[in-house]
Amino acid sequence: MPTILPLVTLTTDFGTRDSYVAELKGVLLSEGPPDLRVVDLSHELSPFDIHGAALFVRAALPRFPSGTVHLVVVDPGVGSARRALIVKKRDMTLVGPDNCVLSYLLDGSESLYEIDRAQLGERPISSTFHGRDLFAPVAARLAAGAPPESLGRPIESVQRMAFPMVEIRGDALQGRIIHVDRYGNLVTNVSEATLRGFLGARAPASMSLMIGEHAIRKRVDHYAEGKRGELVMLIGSAGFVEIAACEANAASLLAAEVGRAVRVVCKD
Amino acid sequence: MPTILPLVTLTTDFGTRDSYVAELKGVLLSEGPPDLRVVDLSHELSPFDIHGAALFVRAALPRFPSGTVHLVVVDPGVGSARRALIVKKRDMTLVGPDNCVLSYLLDGSESLYEIDRAQLGERPISSTFHGRDLFAPVAARLAAGAPPESLGRPIESVQRMAFPMVEIRGDALQGRIIHVDRYGNLVTNVSEATLRGFLGARAPASMSLMIGEHAIRKRVDHYAEGKRGELVMLIGSAGFVEIAACEANAASLLAAEVGRAVRVVCKD
Amino acid sequence: MPTILPLVTLTTDFGTRDSYVAELKGVLLSEGPPDLRVVDLSHELSPFDIHGAALFVRAALPRFPSGTVHLVVVDPGVGSARRALIVKKRDMTLVGPDNCVLSYLLDGSESLYEIDRAQLGERPISSTFHGRDLFAPVAARLAAGAPPESLGRPIESVQRMAFPMVEIRGDALQGRIIHVDRYGNLVTNVSEATLRGFLGARAPASMSLMIGEHAIRKRVDHYAEGKRGELVMLIGSAGFVEIAACEANAASLLAAEVGRAVRVVCKD
Repeated sequence: MPTILPLVTLTTDFGTRDSYVAELKGVLLSEGPPDLRVVDLSHELSPFDIHGAALFVRAALPRFPSGTVHLVVVDPGVGSARRALIVKKRDMTLVGPDNCVLSYLLDGSESLYEIDRAQLGERPISSTFHGRDLFAPVAARLAAGAPPESLGRPIESVQRMAFPMVEIRGDALQGRIIHVDRYGNLVTNVSEATLRGFLGARAPASMSLMIGEHAIRKRVDHYAEGKRGELVMLIGSAGFVEIAACEANAASLLAAEVGRAVRVVCKD
Repeated sequence: MPTILPLVTLTTDFGTRDSYVAELKGVLLSEGPPDLRVVDLSHELSPFDIHGAALFVRAALPRFPSGTVHLVVVDPGVGSARRALIVKKRDMTLVGPDNCVLSYLLDGSESLYEIDRAQLGERPISSTFHGRDLFAPVAARLAAGAPPESLGRPIESVQRMAFPMVEIRGDALQGRIIHVDRYGNLVTNVSEATLRGFLGARAPASMSLMIGEHAIRKRVDHYAEGKRGELVMLIGSAGFVEIAACEANAASLLAAEVGRAVRVVCKD
Repeated sequence: MPTILPLVTLTTDFGTRDSYVAELKGVLLSEGPPDLRVVDLSHELSPFDIHGAALFVRAALPRFPSGTVHLVVVDPGVGSARRALIVKKRDMTLVGPDNCVLSYLLDGSESLYEIDRAQLGERPISSTFHGRDLFAPVAARLAAGAPPESLGRPIESVQRMAFPMVEIRGDALQGRIIHVDRYGNLVTNVSEATLRGFLGARAPASMSLMIGEHAIRKRVDHYAEGKRGELVMLIGSAGFVEIAACEANAASLLAAEVGRAVRVVCKD
């Protein structure tokens, strides 16, 4: 039994210049419980960027109260043969397309369901807007307390992609930029734990973070440390090594984007 | 008696960099019922674009629960002689300026009211921000259950514009692009019903959609069909013929924008 | 005792492409009262623009119901020695960094508190995201009714900046552009009261507003007055003199931005 008022969160790449988000909210509020709260997480994800969306929901959704229903619609394959999913975890329920966007939230303990359109009755379902016609009605019903079994068929597995792994090549950790934030901070896939394991007994001061021809040696605790424009590394709020520039935009300074290689090396 | 908790939706061209939306929400929440839910539909409509806003609300507002109050503020004529309206439909109440923005929601069955400032008491009403000083207080009172008669005078008619009609010229349907969405899909004013009527007994395969020098012949069911970059036509989620490009941006490929002519022709 | 359902507003420079706003909302909804309403004011403030944010909250927050908790996170100094604040006013509670962003809301009657991390228990607090780890948990507790004294230490003063003052130089009022809005309207720091005092017994028609080489003489009541493209002055919705261009963008026409000097002069 949920201890909160019914809550549905929305994560899409729809933007809000078009009416898509508004139509979807209308369906949720019409078909959901009368005291439903709908919370916008983002509608500004890059169109069709499954990796970016997967990172977004990995960081955000576990922060929400137990019982929250999360609607995640980044869905370039809408209308094709890709399945529509309900994923029931212990503390949240996910609704979205079977296209890897939920991958980084899955740990094998989930109950998985393929949404069965027949359970939604006679409604028309467009082939281009499942967010409105399929996912929102399902999320509304889940928020009202319907069990996933009443809306879909249990399935064994879903499409998954692996989190981009760090490699050890010789004496270096080989990683990459996985996200560039609004401030131009470059988030890598090198976690704090991985970094600590790699450093082992070596002196932290011996470490450099290489990106292209740049060697970043200054490690700081927060963004306001360092001289203006200086490139620094730090552990960001998601627990990954970041490259930042004090009062400046590291992405611009380094002309860096998602996918760019980084290396952590140590000089003894 | 409403079956939902009080609900006010917001559709504006204010953006959220300025404080306008925030001020308006403050008034709604201060003067509305204590359990009011305020739902953002869009604040990113193009400044002063009445046609775009009219299409937006036509697509979105009918999706909301009966009893919802919809505030629509795209209002280049704020402070001028244009009237301020309440439009009461069977299943929704609209509040906004009398500048055609509500046109595509009107079918003649509505009760129309001109807002009477005197009903709002002694409050100051700026001449540049009726959204905050006039429309929001009215929407707050309507959401709390006040009847429209208590806030305005019945009127017989309001400003209206016609939906942009398709014409038949010789053997062709002549339409135009009425919206370009975030993904670059080009929405035309040719409805599915109009297309079906035009085709009649002719073979669907004989149909071409002409835009400038391009003839689009491939008709698909959803965006993921077709080869990468291929131009296709389909029926979009609002029931209109759309031009899309598989995994690409049709608007960029065709350098097309709102107003551009399209023609549907058949070769027998 | 609040007369409204618990309400927390959010004002940040986070944007919504990153997961920062979503993470913060998750914390608020997890740790706040079960019927909490979270209302977005803006996430599109210019990164690190303390002055712009201070003007924004000055205009917006006083519109909200008594008892509202306002979270304001524009925080370039996150993780540094800057303090984290609770400011209790008669009709609102503010939570944010001690970096002047709340200055224009302070009148000396407030109770001021420095947030005491120890009151939040054993939770991890990142050095780069106090919005999520420090301010949101505090706002959630305040919204649930916790007194500020239970979350922080009383302090005597906070960082403040003065509102940019108008100067009288010879026969002129010397002001400046303090905000450019979405429509290109240029908001100055010359208030209606200041203007009235300066004019005194002089004829309003003798007044000119100078910006660079331009002398603006036409004073209007609202934006729709005047000829298309004509530069006009008016009193905007926040009570300050604005420069606008009828159906056009004054900021573009004048290549004007925040900080640009303006002068009000009178010819007798």
